[in-house]
Amino acid sequence: MTRFNKITIIGVGLIGGSIGLAIRKRKLAREVVGVFRHESTLKRALRCKAVDKAAISIGSGVKGADLIIVASPVHSIPKIVKMAAECAKEGAIITDAGSTKSWIVNSVEKSLAKFRKIYFVGSHPMAGSEKTGVEAARSDLLNGAPCIVTKTRNTDKKALEKIKKFWSALGSKVSVMTPEEHDKSVSFVSHLPHLVAFSIAGTVPDKYIKYAAEGFGDTTRVASSDPHLWADILLTNKEEVLASAIAFDKTNKKLIRILKEKDAPSLVKLLSKAKAKRDKFVHGASS
Amino acid sequence: MTRFNKITIIGVGLIGGSIGLAIRKRKLAREVVGVFRHESTLKRALRCKAVDKAAISIGSGVKGADLIIVASPVHSIPKIVKMAAECAKEGAIITDAGSTKSWIVNSVEKSLAKFRKIYFVGSHPMAGSEKTGVEAARSDLLNGAPCIVTKTRNTDKKALEKIKKFWSALGSKVSVMTPEEHDKSVSFVSHLPHLVAFSIAGTVPDKYIKYAAEGFGDTTRVASSDPHLWADILLTNKEEVLASAIAFDKTNKKLIRILKEKDAPSLVKLLSKAKAKRDKFVHGASS
Repeated sequence: MTRFNKITIIGVGLIGGSIGLAIRKRKLAREVVGVFRHESTLKRALRCKAVDKAAISIGSGVKGADLIIVASPVHSIPKIVKMAAECAKEGAIITDAGSTKSWIVNSVEKSLAKFRKIYFVGSHPMAGSEKTGVEAARSDLLNGAPCIVTKTRNTDKKALEKIKKFWSALGSKVSVMTPEEHDKSVSFVSHLPHLVAFSIAGTVPDKYIKYAAEGFGDTTRVASSDPHLWADILLTNKEEVLASAIAFDKTNKKLIRILKEKDAPSLVKLLSKAKAKRDKFVHGASS
Repeated sequence: MTRFNKITIIGVGLIGGSIGLAIRKRKLAREVVGVFRHESTLKRALRCKAVDKAAISIGSGVKGADLIIVASPVHSIPKIVKMAAECAKEGAIITDAGSTKSWIVNSVEKSLAKFRKIYFVGSHPMAGSEKTGVEAARSDLLNGAPCIVTKTRNTDKKALEKIKKFWSALGSKVSVMTPEEHDKSVSFVSHLPHLVAFSIAGTVPDKYIKYAAEGFGDTTRVASSDPHLWADILLTNKEEVLASAIAFDKTNKKLIRILKEKDAPSLVKLLSKAKAKRDKFVHGASS
């Protein structure tokens, strides 16, 4: 792919930092600039070599950038995109790394309508960790991970192609869909598992945790994620999360009913169906 | 600890095989004998060096053994313990590795009442994997893992001490409790997470699985476990599993209600409480 001259990342935490490291490792830009609110984060990001240069304001950071990536918490993204658009050069492409898309893309498209020749394409690189902060960033975090890029009737085709190529160049498996399709599919494969993991962890009486083994550890790992980030994600994709929670409740209730009835053959059948689906998941197999 | 002269493992799969490898590595017995039903498993176990010798009948396998470990599926354990007791030498200790305890221990104590000087102590080494079979066995599987040993009014004190020392010598973190206390605590930290993981995997529409990332992978990993083994475990601990499922449902419904009401501060509070509990889990930290 064509190298970018300058890529600016706004919000250099786990995801933003990993994107920075990956861009630098794969030499996809002449320079990577990070925008920081706090000096301590700035120092840590430079120490990790997640970015080449640091800026402390969006205005100075995005100046002259070909590509601007907003990797801040979901609720802040529309506002930051607008601020970035105000200072971006003509022809700049802005994307994000938010875990919900309809709310972000709708808000951004409304506020960007007045800007000519500033292009926005929504993205969701689906990698992460229960850890946060630039210290947890890894250049291979996105390698082999799914990345959903959104397309609406307002999306510029050339910008969309560039964004698709960009995430592919980082090793991600790119899919294109509408923000609504994104929110529906991701509610099932990501938001629901998070919601339920928080519920399991919240249910276990404290005194029993010392008897927990790897099964508990894995099933609830994501419940160690940042509560503010996740409240944000669940609230901005509320309708789809609630719909997938209803579907989950139906499956779970059926399983419980069969267990109550001591119906061993039906129980084995239901568990086998679930296992068959889980066995289809192979992360990073094609990477 | 005193070395055993002969330890016999009945059922040399993931758990039995890992116990065999660990005993051999730590030189806790002069010889480790495995009892097999199928010749193919026997050959694989010898190839993995999980046991020193193989027997194809319980009678010949347990002859002269000081310690007999039954690591077969839960429903088969009481029957196998009885068969082993019939051929065991005076003073032999029998234990198991079953994931539920009241049903096993009650059944075994009834059938062993007529045997004098054959001692049974229930055990649950809490390690495992979604994988099965002796090829997945590892000598360090139990190292740092919790191991619950059961005590009832019929439990022989010396036998209990020997079993506690045995699992400790394998690196496990041993706790002693009644079979009922075991079933209650394990329903929360193991059986509930498995049940829910199966329900999540069973809920996700097939077409969305390709968008799943590590969060889904970890949360549902245990849903790749053997459905027969797990139907067996859930059914033999039915009452406690149903009780923990009710507790889970209460937490989950509360989370959903708060999400519906868009009550961000309460949502953050609830997620934070769950996170604080999950953060207490540190597997193998003391190992």
